[in-house]
Amino acid sequence: MYEEQIQQVVQDDDKALQDPIVRQMIIQLRAMDGYGTYDTWSDAKVLDPLVLTKERRRAIPVVGDPDETTLSRVKAFYNALAQLIERETGLMAVPVINIGHEGFGRALIVVGKLVALDKTLRDVHRFGFESLEAMSAEAQKLMGKATALVNEHRLVAEI
Amino acid sequence: MYEEQIQQVVQDDDKALQDPIVRQMIIQLRAMDGYGTYDTWSDAKVLDPLVLTKERRRAIPVVGDPDETTLSRVKAFYNALAQLIERETGLMAVPVINIGHEGFGRALIVVGKLVALDKTLRDVHRFGFESLEAMSAEAQKLMGKATALVNEHRLVAEI
Repeated sequence: MYEEQIQQVVQDDDKALQDPIVRQMIIQLRAMDGYGTYDTWSDAKVLDPLVLTKERRRAIPVVGDPDETTLSRVKAFYNALAQLIERETGLMAVPVINIGHEGFGRALIVVGKLVALDKTLRDVHRFGFESLEAMSAEAQKLMGKATALVNEHRLVAEI
Repeated sequence: MYEEQIQQVVQDDDKALQDPIVRQMIIQLRAMDGYGTYDTWSDAKVLDPLVLTKERRRAIPVVGDPDETTLSRVKAFYNALAQLIERETGLMAVPVINIGHEGFGRALIVVGKLVALDKTLRDVHRFGFESLEAMSAEAQKLMGKATALVNEHRLVAEI
């Protein structure tokens, strides 16, 4: 695993660690860490594998099946989004993630009877972002769309 | 596998084999039969394992992980429902099935941005119906609710 071989790129004093979305990601990643692997890790180290620099991306095969750890990061991302959509809208948001062979799939966030977010997943085994800022920006974009849809169709979201 | 041991309960002249929902189930089951196992089987034989008589149900452990064949039957059922909802409403209906450990999960049918059907799945390893008629009745009930919801919130379903 590149996590062991390549030097950590997220530094402990990275300002992005204070970003609410990044903070929520840390919470979600730690929440799914059933074996307690992250117990002794700093927040920066927990997030580090999500940052795929060009070098790291190149080290991952183009086609592959995502392992459990990578899947848990994808789930953490959509769980974090659901949490934040919930706060924003005051309505329960439920992530539904469906990943098939070779890392193709679909992520939904359902609010009431409304599909607030619907994203096709590709190359899940290469899930990651150029930087924490890029992760936060992507999350913000998705959240913005989702909460707008909820506000537009509040009746269906409240069923 | 009880399929080999217990005698077939669905007979080739079963009138329920003409039911549109049952016919759609046969189409879906055959569509997912990648290895061609069903090629030499009659429709009755293909459907047979979906009928869980009391005796058959008793033969399945209470707790268990569903195998691939059982999962494919669950998928066939929701694919069939999606097809029929599509015909009924004229809008594309997409099944999303999420099954975790020990056969717990969720089945959604999404039409546009509307969750037309949302069902909690339990004991998926024991997926089946008392009879083909019971299967058709259950499907009809779920379809009725789903199409009503689509008609009520057509705007969201058409997004």
